[in-house]
Amino acid sequence: MSEAVLKELEDVKIVNGIDVDVLSGTVGAIEADPDLGVSRFHATNKWLSGNHNRTTVTSFYGAKQEIAHKHVFNLDADEPAILAGEDKGANPVEHLLHALASCVTTSMVAHAAVRGIPINSLESEVEGDIDLNGYLGLSTEVPRGYTALRVKFKVDADPKYHRRLKELSKFSPVFNTIVQGASVDIQVEPK
Amino acid sequence: MSEAVLKELEDVKIVNGIDVDVLSGTVGAIEADPDLGVSRFHATNKWLSGNHNRTTVTSFYGAKQEIAHKHVFNLDADEPAILAGEDKGANPVEHLLHALASCVTTSMVAHAAVRGIPINSLESEVEGDIDLNGYLGLSTEVPRGYTALRVKFKVDADPKYHRRLKELSKFSPVFNTIVQGASVDIQVEPK
Repeated sequence: MSEAVLKELEDVKIVNGIDVDVLSGTVGAIEADPDLGVSRFHATNKWLSGNHNRTTVTSFYGAKQEIAHKHVFNLDADEPAILAGEDKGANPVEHLLHALASCVTTSMVAHAAVRGIPINSLESEVEGDIDLNGYLGLSTEVPRGYTALRVKFKVDADPKYHRRLKELSKFSPVFNTIVQGASVDIQVEPK
Repeated sequence: MSEAVLKELEDVKIVNGIDVDVLSGTVGAIEADPDLGVSRFHATNKWLSGNHNRTTVTSFYGAKQEIAHKHVFNLDADEPAILAGEDKGANPVEHLLHALASCVTTSMVAHAAVRGIPINSLESEVEGDIDLNGYLGLSTEVPRGYTALRVKFKVDADPKYHRRLKELSKFSPVFNTIVQGASVDIQVEPK
């Protein structure tokens, strides 16, 4: 390869598999114009039958425009037999675990990348406690949702960064939505 | 078919595609022994590269035992190009929308079924607001998570039930986790 090409390759800063220049470019653009950060994520859901339904994600609003995903994502949810489902997909509270685990993972990896902290490997276990007496309406005193969730990471990175990595994971929007809570408005209209 | 078989078929009470006897059986068992309702849902997540990671769901703890799903569910998350991802999956905050939409849908359908309220069709749009200035660390005053979420159902059911259906959707564990908030403990350990 020519020296020019080699120089160009050197200039591409990839940390943790993330092109740091691309991410820093987005961060810089929003820093210059904070309104670019105002985002609205959205999806549609269709009930199929019983406990089986499907969410479709096609695009999102960010950087003052609607941005299409490269693919249409179809996500199925169902319930296991004990809740009279057919187990055609993970159930909604398991999808919440996925949202949480994926978000704290991405937040840690991406924030580490822009700070030049390399991570070699990263896995986690996520779990949460629900007493179904609340959901099933058997007790008004039992909360209907998760009462406590836990994420345990196993990370291969320089131990001097472990404490920092834990803090970086807490930039996660899903983590903060659950810990801080958020309003959810539900409307039911005729078809 | 024999009269006995025909009688048996008549006795299977299917409402909204849900075998109400099965669901009522679970409800009755938990009512008789509330400890059966104590559940722990769990999953593992593996970082693949960059913003791409995968959650695996295989079983859950409920009814005082570990119960295997019929299938292993692999759920991928990634980020779009603007956040330096490769768009190999919906992103974590979109997965949270799926968790919410699927949970309020299932809660409405199942609770309607045991109450004998038929639903012909049900679709919804779900959306939420996030200002990325929080996640990207550009402002400590901007919340990092969703600040408001909205679910708009279009339902084909007797209009006299619409108000009731809205209330039934609020049995949803994911809805309640977000509205009430929950603790999330994060641990980082060496691999």
